[in-house]
Amino acid sequence: MTFHSMWAELLPIGRSSASGGYRRYAWTAADADCRAWFREQAEARGLTYEVDRNGNQWAWLGDPAAGDAVVTGSHLDSVPDGGAFDGPLGVVSSFAALDELRARRAEFTKPLALVNFGDEEGARFGLACVGSRLTAGQLTVAQAHRLTDGEGVTLPQAMEAAGYDPDAIGPDPERLSRIGAFVELHVEQGRALDLSGDQVGLASAIWPHGRWRFDFRGEANHAGTTRLEDRRDPMLPYAETVLAARREARLAGAVATFGKISVEPNGVNAIPSLVRGWLDSRAADQALLDTVVDGVERAARDHAAAHGIDLDVVRESFTPVVEFDHALRDELARILGKDSGARLTVPVLGTGAGHDAGILSDRIPTAMLFVRNPTGVSHSPAEFAAEDDCVAGVRALADVLEGLACR
Amino acid sequence: MTFHSMWAELLPIGRSSASGGYRRYAWTAADADCRAWFREQAEARGLTYEVDRNGNQWAWLGDPAAGDAVVTGSHLDSVPDGGAFDGPLGVVSSFAALDELRARRAEFTKPLALVNFGDEEGARFGLACVGSRLTAGQLTVAQAHRLTDGEGVTLPQAMEAAGYDPDAIGPDPERLSRIGAFVELHVEQGRALDLSGDQVGLASAIWPHGRWRFDFRGEANHAGTTRLEDRRDPMLPYAETVLAARREARLAGAVATFGKISVEPNGVNAIPSLVRGWLDSRAADQALLDTVVDGVERAARDHAAAHGIDLDVVRESFTPVVEFDHALRDELARILGKDSGARLTVPVLGTGAGHDAGILSDRIPTAMLFVRNPTGVSHSPAEFAAEDDCVAGVRALADVLEGLACR
Repeated sequence: MTFHSMWAELLPIGRSSASGGYRRYAWTAADADCRAWFREQAEARGLTYEVDRNGNQWAWLGDPAAGDAVVTGSHLDSVPDGGAFDGPLGVVSSFAALDELRARRAEFTKPLALVNFGDEEGARFGLACVGSRLTAGQLTVAQAHRLTDGEGVTLPQAMEAAGYDPDAIGPDPERLSRIGAFVELHVEQGRALDLSGDQVGLASAIWPHGRWRFDFRGEANHAGTTRLEDRRDPMLPYAETVLAARREARLAGAVATFGKISVEPNGVNAIPSLVRGWLDSRAADQALLDTVVDGVERAARDHAAAHGIDLDVVRESFTPVVEFDHALRDELARILGKDSGARLTVPVLGTGAGHDAGILSDRIPTAMLFVRNPTGVSHSPAEFAAEDDCVAGVRALADVLEGLACR
Repeated sequence: MTFHSMWAELLPIGRSSASGGYRRYAWTAADADCRAWFREQAEARGLTYEVDRNGNQWAWLGDPAAGDAVVTGSHLDSVPDGGAFDGPLGVVSSFAALDELRARRAEFTKPLALVNFGDEEGARFGLACVGSRLTAGQLTVAQAHRLTDGEGVTLPQAMEAAGYDPDAIGPDPERLSRIGAFVELHVEQGRALDLSGDQVGLASAIWPHGRWRFDFRGEANHAGTTRLEDRRDPMLPYAETVLAARREARLAGAVATFGKISVEPNGVNAIPSLVRGWLDSRAADQALLDTVVDGVERAARDHAAAHGIDLDVVRESFTPVVEFDHALRDELARILGKDSGARLTVPVLGTGAGHDAGILSDRIPTAMLFVRNPTGVSHSPAEFAAEDDCVAGVRALADVLEGLACR
């Protein structure tokens, strides 16, 4: 099966005809269709298919117990109305790279595994990389059991409804101990490769990033009859905080975004009782990130107090800076640069996006390959990579896997 | 059945245990329970029960066709997480006032009708006073058929599911021609009576008011990887517009509120593609209201342009100033002031809230009685009227009905 035909099979799954974007949320019907596709691809290639205790899917070539395995893959779920490439490009490229290596008659000296990590985007339960976090022990079972979606469905209920055992979830050190290297291929989520004119790049680091929930609590009241001076309207300090976030991020050369909001009662003629906004912020280092978030929180507190609003700020998730394994990165650069001698010809980029490779990087050597995205748009139906560049990505991934697993 | 026991019967219907507020939206199960209660009350009193073509419920004492009827009532639906009094106080007081008049052995010389208007709050379909607007011809059948709730259910579908015929809806001039006066009793939605120390007041006018939808369209993108200078984030001009609305309202002595928002894709790590905010604004006269809304729209356009955001502003509803019938108001003042001679002792108040009485006021003489609300809070579980004041309201309404229908 070619890259093109695999891609075509996945394209319709979970696509909204209204937005043109994908709604492949963890443990939903669309997710199940993606997962069935992964299993079919594994079995069609005679790979050993298994699901680990946290619902991540694995396809093994060789003995999983032999150790020092080379693993590649990504995820198949999406953000709300996300694009087609973020996640699926890495999974499809993994199968295509294996096909390429078989066509080359490569001889594997180590086990190879392809993986689809569950719930990477966190679109449903609000926490990203749940599958890899659980496996790496970065999310406790108790925390995972408390995760709840917007409809009040808990993660255990959702897993059970999808046919998985939520009582089985937890850290999986034994599985991680069998892995020698994890390489994730991903569409670039910025324009660096487009600006440099390269099809493929390597990751250097993931910026530290986190999510903070700001709960502004006021008093619901009639929008037509309540005098301005009698109001406690939480929308006003929320608005001030949105503007403060942009200001602080600009000063720090960082990013800060309020992209999600929940309002109660959310009626046209009702002053809200609650405005809940989520801040996503990332910066090149920890000190800069602290500066941004402290500045936003200070502004929020000042404006909340001025409007008689109660404010709670909760850090819902946080990921420190990730420096990808230098030795592995240098080896990938050497493999990919071999045509031009020892000179490093692939660009090495930092990124503001979190990935399963980032989660696993403190337990096993991990690396990432990026494929050019001409517009830099991501998490949107406009996300794009040209088929030429995708094919170059598959070839690079095949080269890397050959260099790591066939030496 | 006493006021107290009628009130106790209605209290549990559609009450959210989470918020303590009411979720009695048009044509839902909670609404059906309220409507069943109305019918029971009508039939228990031997009144002639009927539903008009627009789903409004009527309970008649005397011959509906005789003409010059005196009508009283209000509505039983609620805003999201609304209070217990807005609407139901007027309906319960109507039945209680009739009971009081029967206890007084009052002899009716005109037909009397009690009414429950459907979908007054517009919580589900976004347009207030649908039942009375249709009846008065202020909402065309085609417009009503296009009304759609947040789940994509149209008004006709919702009516049909609730057992009503959506093809029957439309203007009802014949019904209006039989009515000589409509009096609506309502909990006050401000603190004027509390400040003046009165239990009951009369309405003078309803401020002109409207709802405007502001659609800010940008570009969805990854919140972690998109440089600030590459963003088209619609949350930023939305925030500026919220603050502009408060500023303009303060300058004009008016009110302006952004209480409802809808964001796409509404993901924590996604820059929104769309932020849709609804402005509710009201002012003492048309010129002031125009000044406020023009100012807000100008600010929205300036900030949208600065952020590369497309903006559409749509006026979703508008109600001009309503001056209640002066002759009827003076007659009510005379009736209620009779104990103290000719001197007007009931306060006469303007209000920023829309009502069915306002909709009907350009077709038939209408008046409103307000009952004291000590906190002024409205459209919230904290909305309140003391039982003493409710009983005073019932007595005032009985006096008014006796004066109008038994002379």
